Amino acid sequence: MSIESLVKKEIRGPVRISPTRLRLKMPPDVISLAAGDPNFLLPEYIADAVYKAIREGYTHYCFGGDPELKEAIARYYKKFGYEADPMKQVIITAGGSQGIFQAYATILNPGDEVIAFDPSYGGGRSPLRYFGAKLVFSPMKKDAEGYFRIDIEALKEKITEKTKALYMENPGNPTGIVYTKEELEAIADLAKDHNFIVISDEIYTEFIWGGKKHIPIISLPDMEDRTIVIMAMTKMFAWAGMRTGWIISGPNLTSYINRVPTGITGVPWPIQKAAIVALNGPWDFVKGQAAEYEERIDYCVKRLNEMPNIKCVKPEGAFYLFPDISATGLKSAEFCAKLFEQEKLRIVPGSAYGPAVGEGHVRIALVRPLSTQTMPSWFKVEPDKTLEAAMDRLERFTKSLAK
Amino acid sequence: MSIESLVKKEIRGPVRISPTRLRLKMPPDVISLAAGDPNFLLPEYIADAVYKAIREGYTHYCFGGDPELKEAIARYYKKFGYEADPMKQVIITAGGSQGIFQAYATILNPGDEVIAFDPSYGGGRSPLRYFGAKLVFSPMKKDAEGYFRIDIEALKEKITEKTKALYMENPGNPTGIVYTKEELEAIADLAKDHNFIVISDEIYTEFIWGGKKHIPIISLPDMEDRTIVIMAMTKMFAWAGMRTGWIISGPNLTSYINRVPTGITGVPWPIQKAAIVALNGPWDFVKGQAAEYEERIDYCVKRLNEMPNIKCVKPEGAFYLFPDISATGLKSAEFCAKLFEQEKLRIVPGSAYGPAVGEGHVRIALVRPLSTQTMPSWFKVEPDKTLEAAMDRLERFTKSLAK
Repeated sequence: MSIESLVKKEIRGPVRISPTRLRLKMPPDVISLAAGDPNFLLPEYIADAVYKAIREGYTHYCFGGDPELKEAIARYYKKFGYEADPMKQVIITAGGSQGIFQAYATILNPGDEVIAFDPSYGGGRSPLRYFGAKLVFSPMKKDAEGYFRIDIEALKEKITEKTKALYMENPGNPTGIVYTKEELEAIADLAKDHNFIVISDEIYTEFIWGGKKHIPIISLPDMEDRTIVIMAMTKMFAWAGMRTGWIISGPNLTSYINRVPTGITGVPWPIQKAAIVALNGPWDFVKGQAAEYEERIDYCVKRLNEMPNIKCVKPEGAFYLFPDISATGLKSAEFCAKLFEQEKLRIVPGSAYGPAVGEGHVRIALVRPLSTQTMPSWFKVEPDKTLEAAMDRLERFTKSLAK
Repeated sequence: MSIESLVKKEIRGPVRISPTRLRLKMPPDVISLAAGDPNFLLPEYIADAVYKAIREGYTHYCFGGDPELKEAIARYYKKFGYEADPMKQVIITAGGSQGIFQAYATILNPGDEVIAFDPSYGGGRSPLRYFGAKLVFSPMKKDAEGYFRIDIEALKEKITEKTKALYMENPGNPTGIVYTKEELEAIADLAKDHNFIVISDEIYTEFIWGGKKHIPIISLPDMEDRTIVIMAMTKMFAWAGMRTGWIISGPNLTSYINRVPTGITGVPWPIQKAAIVALNGPWDFVKGQAAEYEERIDYCVKRLNEMPNIKCVKPEGAFYLFPDISATGLKSAEFCAKLFEQEKLRIVPGSAYGPAVGEGHVRIALVRPLSTQTMPSWFKVEPDKTLEAAMDRLERFTKSLAK
């Protein structure tokens, strides 16, 4: 009998190449602005904190996660106006992606529906197939300025008896929007009226521009026990490879999330100890990153808007640009493929974020330095392989298309 | 509507206290020999390796795990006579418990049956309820000397059309047995004849006594793609809190295991780098632990057999003792409760490992020092709170029972 008959039915199908084998060796002259992997080196005091914790013997089981870390997380989140009980409402996860899995693993039965906006972050919905759940896209609409905003009427139409959850990122990736209080209230009302859960991915809350303010949807009335907040050190502290995140939810819902038997808390205790140090401040490192990101954004938005057939608004949050390329006449996948072929610049087609509304756009992650910056020695880029060079390549490409 | 209606049906039910809240504060004079958490401090070169990796910028995403770590794992496993392809057969997991979850998450559909031996490690079967699968115990039998061995006829009787997997630990926890080639062949034949998967938990392979030899069941003919090996640095390198483990399986089955969307590889890259250093040797630290464990075992087995109504064999592997206490006339749970009450010594009732055969025994984890040992300064135990003291308490208790 075949092995396939022995695996969970949702994951049967032709054998695909395992993700581990998709690690492409990039030629040296490629610039990739695809993944959102912050290009900062962690400050030395973080490495010191990890080292110290190992030497002090924090290498034993830490069942359920370090209570001090949970306190530091609750203290941090308070600045957004919501006070969580550390022991009853915080769960430590191995990064945001494990948090997303754990959230879905708590709530989904086969046949359930989950709504995600078009466009939205693919990692927020890729686990659905495994759970036998159905993904339903709800289209966003662009306002006069060119910002994606939620279309509450469209969202309402997508809700059925089977709707179990809405997945959203705030600030948005790739949209770069920060939800207004009115938008969040409209979503919360739907969640309460139609009895679904909001999975609120809040990974970019430290990177908000132009005076916008992050409001957690969990802080709205009666939303505690129907919100699962996903956060991580990943972007905030350039901590991607250190795999540290958390879930904040209502006390009741948290007790269910804790029942998913993903194993003993996955974040090594020494890394948890370092996260406590990081979250307790100082925040200079985070503020320094934010200043650098905003400089990159301002530079690139200006450059993009000077290119033929490209329109780009300054995001309200996060460090992605999602310019409209529809006037070039190319589909986003074709645009990206040709760009890579001609200019060895890798960015992501908008269709990866949403088939209808995301199409016509491309996502550019501003994780590479401007050439004027002094990079730490470990960050091995040649002076010409920078954001400035990337914009030059994109400009040359869009000009060639316009001919 | 209630939140409960929104959670996965298998985890509904009365709200239990979350695991994070079960962290009992132990009074200072308690000795706990309950959890199997090795009491050694990691050698300094491991802390150095983590520190160096952070400073060198290994704080970025490491999708799919570090290929060098997979190579180190495959190289390590080769010493047991099986050669795995690092990129096609090794998956990095956040410790053994995440590996167990990932294994079940790959194969289980609701209604499936999984067989575990009575007695066996509870963590190997606790995820089953979540998946809507049924646990079926297969009783072991004691040989003339007092060792638990598999009862292949009993196992055969437990197999049904719905049997999806057998969970086993080799070396056994709490049994301390090391499977013989004949036993493994008998299991493999059943797995092939009845088309089920073997989940082989091989966490204690560095701790084998009396010249026994670890044989991986995955190395038997045609077992590659029906075995999921679970391993971890946890016990081997006293690495419990550093959450690093792996799965080894056949190339085909591995490609399915990789489809479970638990998130980006959960082990921080700097910890992966340190694991590479550890696995590449030297192995003095591991050998030193093994020598210490064997000394503890020999000491405690001798002490136990001198106590009234207690019988204990020297285990073939791992660092647990599982003495027969049935002659005391007490059930194992009662034995442990009274022992704790009278002597403040915490050990685990055999009923936690198996309701029929495990009953009548208690598990003692030899993770506390002998008083003759010089403990590192961080290991804060008073000189009298040691294994020797624990044995004194147990002796006093068994004598009081015998009166």
